[in-house]
Amino acid sequence: MSKLTDVPKRILIGRALRSDRLAETLLPKRIALPIFASDPLSSVAYAPGEVLLVLSVAGVSAYSFSPWIAVAVVVLMFTVVASYRQNVHAYPSGGGDYEVATTNLGPKAGLTVASALLVDYVLTVAVSIASGVENLGSAVPFVVEHKTLSAIVIIVLLTLMNLRGVRESGKLFAIPTYVFVAGVFIMIAWGAVRGLVLGDTMRAPTAGYTIHPEQGGLAGFALIFLLLRAFSSGCAALTGVEAISNGVPAFRKPKSKNAATTLALMGGLAVTMFCGIITLAMTTHVKMAENPATDLLSNGRPIGSGYTQNPVISQVAEAVFGKGSFLFVVLAAATALVLFLAANTAYNGFPLLGSILAQDRYLPRQLHTRGDRLAFSNGIVLLAGAATVLVYLYGADSTRLIQLYIVGVFVSFTLSQTGMVRHWNRHLLTEKDPAERRRMHRSRAINAFGAFFTGLVLAVVLLTKFTHGAWVALLGMVVFFVTMTAIRRHYDRVADEIAAEDTPDDDAVRPSRVHSLVLVSRVHKPTLRALNYAKLMRSDTLEAVSVDVDQADTRALRDEWERRGIEVPLKVLASPYREITRPITDYVKSLRRESPRDAVSVYIPEYVVGHWYEHLLHNQSALRLKGRLLFTPGVMVTSVPWQLDSSEAAKKRARKRAEWNAPGAVRRGPVAQPKKEKKEKKEKNEQQERAAVRK
Amino acid sequence: MSKLTDVPKRILIGRALRSDRLAETLLPKRIALPIFASDPLSSVAYAPGEVLLVLSVAGVSAYSFSPWIAVAVVVLMFTVVASYRQNVHAYPSGGGDYEVATTNLGPKAGLTVASALLVDYVLTVAVSIASGVENLGSAVPFVVEHKTLSAIVIIVLLTLMNLRGVRESGKLFAIPTYVFVAGVFIMIAWGAVRGLVLGDTMRAPTAGYTIHPEQGGLAGFALIFLLLRAFSSGCAALTGVEAISNGVPAFRKPKSKNAATTLALMGGLAVTMFCGIITLAMTTHVKMAENPATDLLSNGRPIGSGYTQNPVISQVAEAVFGKGSFLFVVLAAATALVLFLAANTAYNGFPLLGSILAQDRYLPRQLHTRGDRLAFSNGIVLLAGAATVLVYLYGADSTRLIQLYIVGVFVSFTLSQTGMVRHWNRHLLTEKDPAERRRMHRSRAINAFGAFFTGLVLAVVLLTKFTHGAWVALLGMVVFFVTMTAIRRHYDRVADEIAAEDTPDDDAVRPSRVHSLVLVSRVHKPTLRALNYAKLMRSDTLEAVSVDVDQADTRALRDEWERRGIEVPLKVLASPYREITRPITDYVKSLRRESPRDAVSVYIPEYVVGHWYEHLLHNQSALRLKGRLLFTPGVMVTSVPWQLDSSEAAKKRARKRAEWNAPGAVRRGPVAQPKKEKKEKKEKNEQQERAAVRK
Repeated sequence: MSKLTDVPKRILIGRALRSDRLAETLLPKRIALPIFASDPLSSVAYAPGEVLLVLSVAGVSAYSFSPWIAVAVVVLMFTVVASYRQNVHAYPSGGGDYEVATTNLGPKAGLTVASALLVDYVLTVAVSIASGVENLGSAVPFVVEHKTLSAIVIIVLLTLMNLRGVRESGKLFAIPTYVFVAGVFIMIAWGAVRGLVLGDTMRAPTAGYTIHPEQGGLAGFALIFLLLRAFSSGCAALTGVEAISNGVPAFRKPKSKNAATTLALMGGLAVTMFCGIITLAMTTHVKMAENPATDLLSNGRPIGSGYTQNPVISQVAEAVFGKGSFLFVVLAAATALVLFLAANTAYNGFPLLGSILAQDRYLPRQLHTRGDRLAFSNGIVLLAGAATVLVYLYGADSTRLIQLYIVGVFVSFTLSQTGMVRHWNRHLLTEKDPAERRRMHRSRAINAFGAFFTGLVLAVVLLTKFTHGAWVALLGMVVFFVTMTAIRRHYDRVADEIAAEDTPDDDAVRPSRVHSLVLVSRVHKPTLRALNYAKLMRSDTLEAVSVDVDQADTRALRDEWERRGIEVPLKVLASPYREITRPITDYVKSLRRESPRDAVSVYIPEYVVGHWYEHLLHNQSALRLKGRLLFTPGVMVTSVPWQLDSSEAAKKRARKRAEWNAPGAVRRGPVAQPKKEKKEKKEKNEQQERAAVRK
Repeated sequence: MSKLTDVPKRILIGRALRSDRLAETLLPKRIALPIFASDPLSSVAYAPGEVLLVLSVAGVSAYSFSPWIAVAVVVLMFTVVASYRQNVHAYPSGGGDYEVATTNLGPKAGLTVASALLVDYVLTVAVSIASGVENLGSAVPFVVEHKTLSAIVIIVLLTLMNLRGVRESGKLFAIPTYVFVAGVFIMIAWGAVRGLVLGDTMRAPTAGYTIHPEQGGLAGFALIFLLLRAFSSGCAALTGVEAISNGVPAFRKPKSKNAATTLALMGGLAVTMFCGIITLAMTTHVKMAENPATDLLSNGRPIGSGYTQNPVISQVAEAVFGKGSFLFVVLAAATALVLFLAANTAYNGFPLLGSILAQDRYLPRQLHTRGDRLAFSNGIVLLAGAATVLVYLYGADSTRLIQLYIVGVFVSFTLSQTGMVRHWNRHLLTEKDPAERRRMHRSRAINAFGAFFTGLVLAVVLLTKFTHGAWVALLGMVVFFVTMTAIRRHYDRVADEIAAEDTPDDDAVRPSRVHSLVLVSRVHKPTLRALNYAKLMRSDTLEAVSVDVDQADTRALRDEWERRGIEVPLKVLASPYREITRPITDYVKSLRRESPRDAVSVYIPEYVVGHWYEHLLHNQSALRLKGRLLFTPGVMVTSVPWQLDSSEAAKKRARKRAEWNAPGAVRRGPVAQPKKEKKEKKEKNEQQERAAVRK
């Protein structure tokens, strides 16, 4: 790889690691935090604004409810974090919500969670990038003026990066995340100092506007509904919290404890930032409207369609730091970057979840093995394609995309927490130690409250957002669910079909003798090699077979055969219609008819070439023939390769491909080493548990 | 196949023949004529018009030269027919111009002819369909109003027909061709009767117009140049004459004699029709202009862009039969149909020539075998794609497309006739029989005149048409020539690389022992079958190999292995990064390193599935692994298939595909039967001759 093409990659991601070094890359907390928390932390960049947006429907006066909504979000955040701290301790294997739901509630619940998470990954990409573009746009207007295009360009860039196989590198990931967190904290602190100590009046750029309430004078049920809708929007701050519970194996020891601490840290940061931004927004009189063109009034007149509504975080930064100031620009850039990193986490999480689903045969088997580039590529392209379609359809408008976002998250929260309650119930049946039982009771209480609260939020979200777009997310979940069920059913059917009978040796499939055939077109090195190899195998009979497509060629072949004194008998098959495949399959079938208990082994010399276009020139007949022969039971086909000089090129390419780094590798942690007996034992317990539940 | 979908096919082509019956389908002259002559006969539908079009540049007065040009075309036609009658006798094997040029002038000349013919096939499709649409349009105006679209739709229809594998059926091909020929003859006869006997004044629809000469008062060199250009356009009538010389093997015995008679018949018909139409056009005062919108004057004013200039044949038919009369409509329909059949001949000729070129390794080998659907499909799609591009670029304007057409034809005429002169020279060196020598001298004289005349025409065409579009055809020829040279060079390089050394047994490639490995993931029927087959082969060592991707699975596999008491040792390879391919290739390489003189045989259980999507769910790892293993020298890979129940579907599909009829089958004639000793001998002589020349 040239140095030049690496530069942007290194800037964003850091130097790629060879997979040999994967085992060394267990993550300390200070690195794990930015890797796993860029998604939930970055959501404070849009969640506060969404709350204000919804409230604006009832006019500026409704803004006074925003502290209460913030409190509700904070309580929810603490509940979810506390709940997931239980998950992390109970399931350190990294299966996350899918594992918890499957183990405790059965495969259907598990698959529902998986579908929800897959939809969630698509929306993480769409929402984070749309919001990132909006934040970048507050400093670089060009980007917002071509919002959809910019968002799609960034999706394409992320996709290419991940297809090429870059790896999340903790250290470089840490920088924008920490800059973002530090920036927000400085903003909150400086805002507090200016407001409380210096007594400055800080005014957001929209402070002078007024809002035309779409539904003025809301009261009673309608008001409550609006507040619930605002709360639902605020819940966007919780997306991505579950990421840490999927990543426990990547932590340094003690893994569960470190992961739990990181979770708490993340929750604390997110809550503080969320509340700080809401408070600053209220202090600086930020005005947000769902339809700014008509509902935002400047001197009593609608502001018109030319107006771009900047995100709350950027309006607040402008009020605190001053427009165009150094800190303002740094914060805008860090916000955008951290949002793009949040999108990138989906590129890592998607194949990770895919691999677990593949292990349970809901997705093609090859997704399970790490570093299967082709399989991962398909997943990445699927993810990027779906996100691009959403971004395009919704005009890269983060507000509209968020309506779809929260359903999936809370489906998995609710099912996961419900599963945890069951988990503790089961353990309490057998546990005798009173101290342990006390701990379990406490954990169960936390998870039960979590399940109740997240379930309530899910109901609220469905109720308040269904027509606003949540149905799209539900539809996506159904599609994933149905597809994965179909795949699983197919695998199960095949497994039944191929299950070995319970006799030590399956006599029905055991032939008694082998006839070997070597396909020959001319006498050259590949043919001679195939003949030699076939001879080595000492089958019962061995003959060379050629098809008489051209009489002169056949005569030449026969002459050469005699001249060289090759002792293998040469059989020439007539081909009145210049076909190759049919005479051979007919001959093989006739052999099988004559002695049905014997197997036929066909040796085909095959060229190994280096370039795709050479495939057009070689092996086509061989491949076709092989495809046809395999339909006949009792036949096996052996490729005897001949490496052409040009194959070196392909060999080099393949070697390069082998060094490819699968996305999600860091998040998954290294594969458990046989030495780590304890962890293995724990895993084994979990597996037995899971198996027990399934039965 | 359902009856319904067959109806249009049967109407156009007739019932498809099973290839078993191919041997019975030798063609009598009355059927061979329409099959091979639809191309040259149909060209009289546009050639006369092209002559008038060019002459119109100098004004209506220049039309008086048209009889002279007709005479020149007639002389040329007689020359070419007489020349090809020599070809047909000397080369009855059906290789056509390509064979003649290669044998007598060397491979470069042969390849030039082949390139010219390939371009010619593309243009046959484009010109015939464009002209067919124009003729159809004289009866159905809608078609001409959407000319390009109509032409492309017809190309697509023809392509689909040929991809599905219909076969030229002589009997149904005969009907439109004979209707067309009869229609033209009736028109000429009825026109003669009306004009000479009844003394009617027949006036073409354009008789009342005058022509604004683009270059008035031409004289001297400029006039001669214009006349030569008109003659070049008239030569379009000769395209396709060589088709019969490619089709000799399809004739009934005596093949050469029958082919020669058919050629003469075809020449006679074409000449009569050409002259008749020109004469009628003069009598009925047809006016054609290159740019009718500006140069055709009605009452002294340009006729404007709304005017559609109908082909000469339809204008004449209108004058003779009356517009909209039954005979007029029948002739228009027959003309269009015969032109579409002419286009279809290219679909048959292209794969035929491709097969011969593939035999000489200028094209991928698999094109040589008949009924290789995939290979033929690619050729058909290439042909249709190129024709569609031309039709689109030139707006389906037959006049502009014809500028490109004639170059290729005359390149192959000239080289073929030159080759024939050499052929006779060589034969005269050894021939003693005076009667035979006389015949040869006469033949040589004919071919020499043919070579001279066609060469002259080629020069004229290049001179007068180069800037009008002939350069496009030349460019196409160069592209084909370069591509085929590159393919041949590749095959030659590979042939050198794999050529067997001249020792009776090549010791360097002969290993001494075989280690067999059976890949195992779980114990099921496919695995057991693979194990049983591997045991049958009695290699020196045999072990089962599994990759430890999942510890629980591996443990289950080990337990099951022991429980069943399988005596083959099970080797488990560690895979710290959950890969499958790399641990196995590494293990195989380590075996090879330990004992470099031994071969390794890897058995892979493979699923045979019935639907494309099942491929996504099975065998992916196996295929990837196989691809990697083949790069390692000394390794052979055996697929042990397990036919899933669903594979029945694919089996049925494959069987249906096997009954597919390759285009060009009828034209090529059945494959020579071993009984026909005489013909074979003759062919052998030709082959020796050719070999001699190549040396």
